[in-house]
Amino acid sequence: MAVIVQKYGGTSVADIEKIQNIAKRVIKTREAGNDVVVVLSAMAGETDRLIQMANSASEGTPEGREYDVLVSSGEQISVSLLSIVLNKMGHKAISLLGHQVKIHTNDAHSNAKIRKVDIELISDELKKGKIVVVAGFQGVDKEGNITTLGRGGSDTSAVAIAASLKADFCEIFTDVDGVYTTDPNLYSKARKIKKISYDEMLSLAGAGAKVLQHRSVELAKTYGVPVYVRSSFSEDSGTLVTKEDKDMEREVVSGVTYDRDQAKVTIGHVPDKPGIAARLFTPLSDNDINVDMIIQNASSEGYTDLTFTVSKKNIEKARRLLDTVAGEMGASMIDYDENISKISIVGVGMQTQSGVASKMFAALANEGINIMMISTSEIKISCVIEAKYTELAVRVLHDAFGLELEN
Amino acid sequence: MAVIVQKYGGTSVADIEKIQNIAKRVIKTREAGNDVVVVLSAMAGETDRLIQMANSASEGTPEGREYDVLVSSGEQISVSLLSIVLNKMGHKAISLLGHQVKIHTNDAHSNAKIRKVDIELISDELKKGKIVVVAGFQGVDKEGNITTLGRGGSDTSAVAIAASLKADFCEIFTDVDGVYTTDPNLYSKARKIKKISYDEMLSLAGAGAKVLQHRSVELAKTYGVPVYVRSSFSEDSGTLVTKEDKDMEREVVSGVTYDRDQAKVTIGHVPDKPGIAARLFTPLSDNDINVDMIIQNASSEGYTDLTFTVSKKNIEKARRLLDTVAGEMGASMIDYDENISKISIVGVGMQTQSGVASKMFAALANEGINIMMISTSEIKISCVIEAKYTELAVRVLHDAFGLELEN
Repeated sequence: MAVIVQKYGGTSVADIEKIQNIAKRVIKTREAGNDVVVVLSAMAGETDRLIQMANSASEGTPEGREYDVLVSSGEQISVSLLSIVLNKMGHKAISLLGHQVKIHTNDAHSNAKIRKVDIELISDELKKGKIVVVAGFQGVDKEGNITTLGRGGSDTSAVAIAASLKADFCEIFTDVDGVYTTDPNLYSKARKIKKISYDEMLSLAGAGAKVLQHRSVELAKTYGVPVYVRSSFSEDSGTLVTKEDKDMEREVVSGVTYDRDQAKVTIGHVPDKPGIAARLFTPLSDNDINVDMIIQNASSEGYTDLTFTVSKKNIEKARRLLDTVAGEMGASMIDYDENISKISIVGVGMQTQSGVASKMFAALANEGINIMMISTSEIKISCVIEAKYTELAVRVLHDAFGLELEN
Repeated sequence: MAVIVQKYGGTSVADIEKIQNIAKRVIKTREAGNDVVVVLSAMAGETDRLIQMANSASEGTPEGREYDVLVSSGEQISVSLLSIVLNKMGHKAISLLGHQVKIHTNDAHSNAKIRKVDIELISDELKKGKIVVVAGFQGVDKEGNITTLGRGGSDTSAVAIAASLKADFCEIFTDVDGVYTTDPNLYSKARKIKKISYDEMLSLAGAGAKVLQHRSVELAKTYGVPVYVRSSFSEDSGTLVTKEDKDMEREVVSGVTYDRDQAKVTIGHVPDKPGIAARLFTPLSDNDINVDMIIQNASSEGYTDLTFTVSKKNIEKARRLLDTVAGEMGASMIDYDENISKISIVGVGMQTQSGVASKMFAALANEGINIMMISTSEIKISCVIEAKYTELAVRVLHDAFGLELEN
């Protein structure tokens, strides 16, 4: 008998009929002889409704503690409804909220981190033969205040519970049926990946693919929790996210992703003195602006250029901070470009294969696509290009690395 | 500095604008130098939305525990929104849910009784200068399960908190501006009562007036909590429900109420043996059917008649139980009449005044209204009449006892 954690997202519990459908799937898993813990998001639309109320009440950004009390009611509704449906279908089910489980977090409201999951209550209820339905996205701090994990936090709840329970695996049911070699909406030759390593999944997520919340994959990697990404609406087997399989041939490139949400900032002709990077980036991090790619050219005659990307939604805030700082630093120019896109190829195999980068650059060059910035990690190469070439670049790279073929 | 508990009902928190309005009233009370604890119901419509979801999920009556998890989310939303609004308006506010306070109840889901209210957390937050906003209607049992108190339970929450905190008084803000001598919609001469005793209020509530939840008045009486019933939408002083004032002249009759929700059951020619009443009413109470008035005629030649009233909504269930029992008991007839109404006059003064009952009967007789059943208590006289005479009876009795005049 296995212990299985199943997480269903908001579109999977959007109405009573959909809840009845997932109840059938939960029951099927239970009747196959497994202990089942279900983790739910709020019904699709509910969280937005609550956020809208909060914004309307606060005429801006509401204070964190009360905001968390408000939005956590969304999962409270979905878990009780599923439990009612399961009970109605003749199975014993019990809902547990974050403060009941307890899912201990720090006190960073609206973006809390899970510290520990108590498993006693869940284990007790499983032993009684019950299906345990846990509210995702929410926890409790040490003072007993309700906290939430930030958007998409239910994935993290599910993996944390699976890790704590030492579950056999964690299934993430969503509105896509797995992880693809690239966005199928953008390129019809995209192929579903049967198995992918945690690191590749992290690189894909960081590069803009939105299938799993980044933190949930990090957590799964840390605790070695196998995660299946599957569709709520089909029986398809989905994608297994798991440990890197050292015995197998590794694919050089597993996928191509893109991110249109970045903007590029270039600060030119800055006197190259110790501390310039810190002086530039500290005000950004102080204002919660994440910087993604950073490139500093080799110094020339005591001056250097710095280029980096930030999220488009932060560009105005960044501009207000940087115009001042750049001036104080004696930079001769500062340029903002929102008309860019970041294309990445990801694969664990590229660590041991040479020529992957040059193949990528050549493929783009052949189509006349100019590369503005390059950054590389062990398993990812990213290029910033003009936004209008996004689709073309994805197709070209997908073809160049033969991703349409199962290997 | 006084400690004041203010309870606002669903229509008072129906939208953000209304919440902003009550926030102003809360702040005014706070700025007058008082410690303020606010108790809220769910936003009007929210509880119905949740109940509809529950019914749809369960295809009938949902299991109590999960139902309570579901519906308690309604107050969670209203308390966090008011706290956000108060914080926005520059006052420190904190919301507390039933399990945070804690409001301890028994485990009778959907109809739980309050056992004890912990005041430590509320007191601590008041000492910090905060306005404390507590979710009404909900509590927690000793296992940590969420419970709810049943419809209108927020009044009881407010009085229980006021009693535990030894608050100076409890204000119940609602969509009516006080307690009237009779239903103003039914008789335009109805007059607002400035001050009424707990017992009179209980008799009025039991007789069909719906201003305060019955249990909340019982609790207020037990702990001597003065309760002001006031309108959320005006500055009017409302009605004070308090201890009977022994030094003052007492009004003979304080109010006239009616109840159209009763149905009458008559069981005729039953052999008059010990135990017949128990045999008749035990199956009803076993099935949660409350019996209101009960009249047994004096025995005649070894036979008796029994007449009683039950709520109209239970009449079909009662019929199924009683047809069998009456047959077994050898009754010669059983009759069900839904076409009735109960008219009551209430007043502490009638304990020391003679002639009140006969004045009531004469007033009805003068209008040709036949009295089918009579029941009396120290401070109430009730008559069952034909339903069509309801309005006429109310007006006639209101006039007969001079209720339109302030005494």
